[in-house]
Amino acid sequence: MNRGNLIVISGPSGAGKSTVVSRAMTFRNDICFSTSVTTRKPRPGEVDGVDYFFIDQSRFDEMVRNNELLEHAVYVSNSYGTPAKFVEEQLEKGMNVILDIEIQGAAQVHSNKPEAVMIFIIPPSIDELRKRLTGRGTENEETIEARIQRAIQECREADFYDYIIINDDLDKASEDLSSIMNAELCRFEKKKDVLYSFGK
Amino acid sequence: MNRGNLIVISGPSGAGKSTVVSRAMTFRNDICFSTSVTTRKPRPGEVDGVDYFFIDQSRFDEMVRNNELLEHAVYVSNSYGTPAKFVEEQLEKGMNVILDIEIQGAAQVHSNKPEAVMIFIIPPSIDELRKRLTGRGTENEETIEARIQRAIQECREADFYDYIIINDDLDKASEDLSSIMNAELCRFEKKKDVLYSFGK
Repeated sequence: MNRGNLIVISGPSGAGKSTVVSRAMTFRNDICFSTSVTTRKPRPGEVDGVDYFFIDQSRFDEMVRNNELLEHAVYVSNSYGTPAKFVEEQLEKGMNVILDIEIQGAAQVHSNKPEAVMIFIIPPSIDELRKRLTGRGTENEETIEARIQRAIQECREADFYDYIIINDDLDKASEDLSSIMNAELCRFEKKKDVLYSFGK
Repeated sequence: MNRGNLIVISGPSGAGKSTVVSRAMTFRNDICFSTSVTTRKPRPGEVDGVDYFFIDQSRFDEMVRNNELLEHAVYVSNSYGTPAKFVEEQLEKGMNVILDIEIQGAAQVHSNKPEAVMIFIIPPSIDELRKRLTGRGTENEETIEARIQRAIQECREADFYDYIIINDDLDKASEDLSSIMNAELCRFEKKKDVLYSFGK
């Protein structure tokens, strides 16, 4: 069994990150999402170990202290984090584990796991992003403009990512994601044991 | 038009390098082989500019002096080299240019063009390599053993390659090659202009 890769995916809201990942999941079975820990209370229907690992603040703080989280952040007074152990177990099973997180969390993962594959997904243009955000019909013009300004800012901070996927066409974007997964499994470091086994 | 990548492919004789590339060429049209210059005389049927660029030794020496070759070597008293200009023209057209060369030449390209994508193609095992070389029926046992020892030595020297493709199954190996091409076109450096165009 070949070990999978940890794949960090970020990008502006409206870039279509989860749609691209979901599409790739329809044609390959070695992709899974990471399950986060949170101190938030479960909502009706949420299952512990599926939607999140629900834990209390003292356990969360302990995980932070013991370096058990690849990244963590506070959002609306609740703490969220990515447990290293869960990710490690999935990688060992040969899964490509997807972390769909913001740039700040991604920077933490990049630092804690330098081998993580960092992918930034963007829309083809700001005009297209505006069109998509407007098309949702859920936000007013002011909110949309704020999102766009934030997207521009995020793009400026994304210089530590390895790859950029332009989500112009969903088929092409999900194929690019899949190609990156294949390519990363062919990395010298991942395959060198086979190479060096020759002659032994 | 997006610029293509320079792809260096090496690997032991019998690994199936050209078969893997040819297979990939059946399903994508952005791959071409580099055309080498040589001081060897054309054989019947060989076309200048197609099989090789046929040049004389003084022109060859001039190309070396002027740094017009990405790599060069002498083989059976004739000089061979990869002209930078031809490669550059193809890359500009968006082609992925394949250099099928030995490790020594590959090391020269790696040094002259650090952005070149370095791929090492290997058979799944030495036993399988022996089987393939024997299956050709063109070489005696002694020659085959010499090739195998050389293959083992080459594998030890291949530590500057970016990727390893294990050619166990031809479909999988050509798909891996294609995935690497796609992934390399998504590299941050290749796409960052789009990213930074946002907000301008």
